Amino acid sequence: MNILEQARQQVSFDVDSVTPLLYGSKEQAEQFLAIFRHIKQFLEKCKNIPEVQTSPDYYNWNRGIQFLSKGDQALAFQKLLDFKLDEIPLYLGTIIYSATTNYYGVYFGMVLPAIKVLGTDEQINAWYKDCLNLKIAGCYAQTELAHGSDVQSLQTTATYDQKTDEFIIHTPSVEAVKFWPGELGFLANWALVYAKLIVNNKSHGVQAFMVPIRDFNTHKPLPGIEVGDIGPKIGYTSKDNGYLKFTHCRIPSFNMLAKYIKVTRDGQVIRQGDPKVSYSAMMIMRKLIITVYPRTAATSLTIAIRYSIARQQFTNDQGQENSVLEYQTQQHKLLPLLANLYSIIFTGLKVGQLVDLNFSQVQKQDFSLMAICHAIICGTKANFTYFVSNCAEWCRLSCGGHGYAHYSGLPAIYQDNCPNITLEGENQIMYLQLARFLLKLYNQAKQASKKINETYFGLFNRLQAITDYRCTQFTREQILQLLESNVIHSIQITNDKMMAHINSGLDPKSVWDYKIGTDLWSSANNFIEYYKYLSFLQTIDQADNNNTKRVLRDLADLFAASILLEGSSVLIEAGVINVESIKLIREFYTQQLTIIKPEAIGLVEAFRYNDASLRSTIGCSDGQPYEKTYHSAINENTLNKTDFKPIVNQLKNIKARL
Amino acid sequence: MNILEQARQQVSFDVDSVTPLLYGSKEQAEQFLAIFRHIKQFLEKCKNIPEVQTSPDYYNWNRGIQFLSKGDQALAFQKLLDFKLDEIPLYLGTIIYSATTNYYGVYFGMVLPAIKVLGTDEQINAWYKDCLNLKIAGCYAQTELAHGSDVQSLQTTATYDQKTDEFIIHTPSVEAVKFWPGELGFLANWALVYAKLIVNNKSHGVQAFMVPIRDFNTHKPLPGIEVGDIGPKIGYTSKDNGYLKFTHCRIPSFNMLAKYIKVTRDGQVIRQGDPKVSYSAMMIMRKLIITVYPRTAATSLTIAIRYSIARQQFTNDQGQENSVLEYQTQQHKLLPLLANLYSIIFTGLKVGQLVDLNFSQVQKQDFSLMAICHAIICGTKANFTYFVSNCAEWCRLSCGGHGYAHYSGLPAIYQDNCPNITLEGENQIMYLQLARFLLKLYNQAKQASKKINETYFGLFNRLQAITDYRCTQFTREQILQLLESNVIHSIQITNDKMMAHINSGLDPKSVWDYKIGTDLWSSANNFIEYYKYLSFLQTIDQADNNNTKRVLRDLADLFAASILLEGSSVLIEAGVINVESIKLIREFYTQQLTIIKPEAIGLVEAFRYNDASLRSTIGCSDGQPYEKTYHSAINENTLNKTDFKPIVNQLKNIKARL
Ligand SMILES: Cc1cc2nc3c(=O)[nH]c(=O)nc-3n(C[C@H](O)[C@H](O)[C@H](O)COP(=O)(O)OP(=O)(O)OC[C@H]3O[C@@H](n4cnc5c(N)ncnc54)[C@H](O)[C@@H]3O)c2cc1C
Ligand SMILES: Cc1cc2nc3c(=O)[nH]c(=O)nc-3n(C[C@H](O)[C@H](O)[C@H](O)COP(=O)(O)OP(=O)(O)OC[C@H]3O[C@@H](n4cnc5c(N)ncnc54)[C@H](O)[C@@H]3O)c2cc1C
Repeated sequence: MNILEQARQQVSFDVDSVTPLLYGSKEQAEQFLAIFRHIKQFLEKCKNIPEVQTSPDYYNWNRGIQFLSKGDQALAFQKLLDFKLDEIPLYLGTIIYSATTNYYGVYFGMVLPAIKVLGTDEQINAWYKDCLNLKIAGCYAQTELAHGSDVQSLQTTATYDQKTDEFIIHTPSVEAVKFWPGELGFLANWALVYAKLIVNNKSHGVQAFMVPIRDFNTHKPLPGIEVGDIGPKIGYTSKDNGYLKFTHCRIPSFNMLAKYIKVTRDGQVIRQGDPKVSYSAMMIMRKLIITVYPRTAATSLTIAIRYSIARQQFTNDQGQENSVLEYQTQQHKLLPLLANLYSIIFTGLKVGQLVDLNFSQVQKQDFSLMAICHAIICGTKANFTYFVSNCAEWCRLSCGGHGYAHYSGLPAIYQDNCPNITLEGENQIMYLQLARFLLKLYNQAKQASKKINETYFGLFNRLQAITDYRCTQFTREQILQLLESNVIHSIQITNDKMMAHINSGLDPKSVWDYKIGTDLWSSANNFIEYYKYLSFLQTIDQADNNNTKRVLRDLADLFAASILLEGSSVLIEAGVINVESIKLIREFYTQQLTIIKPEAIGLVEAFRYNDASLRSTIGCSDGQPYEKTYHSAINENTLNKTDFKPIVNQLKNIKARL
Repeated sequence: MNILEQARQQVSFDVDSVTPLLYGSKEQAEQFLAIFRHIKQFLEKCKNIPEVQTSPDYYNWNRGIQFLSKGDQALAFQKLLDFKLDEIPLYLGTIIYSATTNYYGVYFGMVLPAIKVLGTDEQINAWYKDCLNLKIAGCYAQTELAHGSDVQSLQTTATYDQKTDEFIIHTPSVEAVKFWPGELGFLANWALVYAKLIVNNKSHGVQAFMVPIRDFNTHKPLPGIEVGDIGPKIGYTSKDNGYLKFTHCRIPSFNMLAKYIKVTRDGQVIRQGDPKVSYSAMMIMRKLIITVYPRTAATSLTIAIRYSIARQQFTNDQGQENSVLEYQTQQHKLLPLLANLYSIIFTGLKVGQLVDLNFSQVQKQDFSLMAICHAIICGTKANFTYFVSNCAEWCRLSCGGHGYAHYSGLPAIYQDNCPNITLEGENQIMYLQLARFLLKLYNQAKQASKKINETYFGLFNRLQAITDYRCTQFTREQILQLLESNVIHSIQITNDKMMAHINSGLDPKSVWDYKIGTDLWSSANNFIEYYKYLSFLQTIDQADNNNTKRVLRDLADLFAASILLEGSSVLIEAGVINVESIKLIREFYTQQLTIIKPEAIGLVEAFRYNDASLRSTIGCSDGQPYEKTYHSAINENTLNKTDFKPIVNQLKNIKARL
């Protein structure tokens, strides 16, 4: 029996019982498994179409070919699998399959929804059919060379010309050139442009405009448009992030998305409706980042944990080679990540429900969850995207040399996921927004001015009890209390610092920016870690057998112990925890490593990713990394067909003078 | 005056006074600056040879072209700059210029030195001329598919055939295929093969063999040889890491490097001389990783700090846009890295001297520094390579969207440096080796059995004092004591744990592997951090004016404070430090951020990297990132010359069904 099989025998829980928890329900699990089967089927069907294969060779190609191959892939996907864009799970599948497979991913994921929520019925009627036919294929053109996070300072102008009833879209400086929009480089023929609305020399803030940029027939840039691709990046090899410069381009006034703002023919600017409604719909896109992308971390961990079992190096006291997963340090690298992944998947499912609930409430003009939803999205977005990137990196490192090569499947996960830290709300700024909300809640709670939402922020209703809590002898039953304390005390310390600075005469904004940024960051992060543990526990309650519950609880507590060891300085500073307890947590942590180690293979395989989806020679289910790796080097590497003799001969002219 | 110029005005020390400290001396600084000028000159001279330019466009090309371009570059380098391989500083320059520029880098850096130290005079005479002429161009073929770190378990065999006086080199299984050697894929026609020597059915350990693998004239694989490139990786785009499989290949017995081991004609295996001599020479190569590669982190930081000053987002209380470096969180991301970089550069220079000193002593049969030198090399290798990779990553993240694109210069630094964590001794294993040494010293010191080397491990001679030390009220004067305590207490705790496990009946090897790995890891790391701070202080003493001393001391203490905040749990657990002091360290830390912020631009520019060496549109010395970035997107991006209309047209067949 091979070593991976042996490891599977040691798993003490029913792996099938965990899968539905990871996907939200039995039905959703089935949908996901169907995606994995689709992917497998797809790859098998197009075995003989090299451009469509996803082999490591892809990373040998030039970017033009890479770009084209993704187009071929999209076409083949549609042909072979009857690709329907409304099948959200399939859309998710393509993300798992490859973050950048989605030709028109930004278009369908960001531009169309924006038109739907910011456009009037008239506008939607006018454009939507062409949008679905890809006659209009737009990009989301917000970021400029000099401004990204600070959207209010965008410099592109949209000036209303009352004479002709048009807007003039213009790029006033190189700083204002649109830069980064995905699909702008080659694909898009329209752009949803965010620009400063100017009417009668007065600015009315940044608004959204539908601007044609390329001719539908020739696909050449329209007059006044300079457009192209910005160049190669770490990953996103086949995504054409672009630049766009306008020279006095005129569009009909009809083209400003006008559900919440309107310019009348005589130059009046009228605001209408509650833009919060639109915001609640836009949240649905951020939901993707929180619920879908973390699932790529399950890919990294499936690969790394399987390989760490199959990889044997150095002999043990019985003279046999050890799996490297036997080494405590290897467990320390991988198992806390696995525990964290579970907490993130479970929490993501909860956040998804919150976003949906908020959306449906907002439809009924109930905005009570809006701020809560925004705060939690910001914090989880920041926490989860850091995690995915960091997890990919440590999985890679834990695979030694092989982790550095594309055949391992790990580099691509890192390369395509690491920008998520920056895009869709830079993480730093996301954390600051959650922190702002937490400070507000804290002060409301302190003044007992308002009852805080119990479901999401219940800990603020127990401020006194939490503040008074002390841990003199750590046991695992105290973990939740410790994590709660960690939140409340860090907010308290931050708030005290803030007040002290303000009382000494500094303005609040300066305090915020220059004095307490790192405290705000850790307060927000501490809250999210607490929230993840809580969600983990709540999910365990849903498990339907005791073995599963036991293992998941062990995993949850491993996660919590790792968090407490890394980030418990506030607990020490606030006197919540004593030296004895810290030692006990450390012991508990290493003990949990030992307990989770034999379960690890079951815990990653509960995700049920098939070999085709992993795209890794070293992480396959049969536990035989070497044959496949060797095969890949020979057969999935067109460079070996090139004759490099001429350059080698030429190089012999280099005379070493040592 | 532009904002970067303004920032330079605020620097309070003489930047020129720091440069010699960073390069070891005025003379060495001059050599380095000459390299930078060479690079600039080189790039200017070949402005019209696109394959030789290093523009972001490089990352659009296919790997074959990338590979060829590096060959052209090497040739052009020689032609234009009279490239002499014995000019070590120039060699270093090419590393700074690009980690993978070095065609034959592994050959000159690893294979030739190995021949020199492991070969007999006769062997050196026989091969060396051909080596320098590149008639023999070898790769370093040690790692196999299934074994890397565990060199003793390599499976390739070299069986002595007494009849013919030959060795038969053979790959007995797919696991034993040589995998990863740089320059094996396309360039090499010889390989220095590490294989198990078998004489009369008895194994005599892994030895080194010179094996021809490709025909000199046709460059085709010789009979019995399967060879090629392993495929694309994260970085190292133009390095042909290869695979190599032998089927009973015969080589003359002369081809085993025989300075320390010999097989006689009648099949006797004779060991001769002290292989430590050879090991001391091999150390000189590791020295490169410790002293040269960290200098690429100065590139990342020069780019990130300049850009963080030029990048302005969000307005302050005066309504002006802030440089993002004004934000505390941005300082928190970058300034501890800058401080750490200085500690690493200064420490690297000291380790370099130690390696040289050891080498010269070994020539005189004095092996007294050998073990010390090995231990320090292991620890600094691990610490420094983690740092460079992590620093590149955070510099990238601190540059927002632009950091993700190759035009920023940051992705390449990460991609080409991150494998250093794994290669030339996997970091984990490096730390374990240092930890082993530290535990030994600790036990020697405890039994007062031996006086410990005062220069490098003096703290072990003060075991009692250090153990007794307590910090009740932190001041910066206590930093060194705290870092010493951190070392001694973590070793002590680890040692106690180890003894407890051994006393409870576990064998020492199992304790080591399964019980205390993470403790060993942090003991080793704590030692290196202490050693870095000590080296920093010693270097400050060499500064020739008080202003410089003051700023460098502030920087050193920022470094130390960040280390203490992250890794001081042992100090808490051992009762060395109280809650009050932790709070004081945290305050001290944020205060140091504020003090270093205005000096940061001076501290990075003291490295004197010119714009040509940075290869970044956003990090240039003129503080004008946007013009150059826009220019690069348009002019350094051949993809914009491709017509993608056909695929766009085809894609219009994708019908969305939303
Ligand atoms: C792969 C990729 C795809 C993209 N796709 C699109 C797209 O389709 N459409 C589009 O419009 N844009 C797109 N973008 C751009 C992206 O949205 C922005 O890059 C992102 O919003 C970050 O903004 P920035 O670049 O301005 O970062 P910056 O805000 O400039 O960040 C730089 C540094 O400053 C810090 N900082 C900034 N403000 C503050 C503050 N107030 N307090 C503390 N620290 C601060 C940040 O934390 C960071 O460390 C894409 C980017 C990438 C990388
Ligand atoms: C870019 C690059 C260039 C290279 N160039 C060359 C070359 O020119 N010639 C050549 O011969 N090779 C080369 N190599 C191979 C390289 O030397 C090996 O990959 C490296 O030595 C690591 O060994 P490994 O791959 O066996 O990792 P492994 O040792 O298998 O590491 C896997 C995991 O196991 C852990 N582990 C292993 N043993 C232990 C232990 N005892 N205790 C605790 N944890 C353990 C490690 O920490 C790691 O997390 C290159 C590799 C790369 C990436």
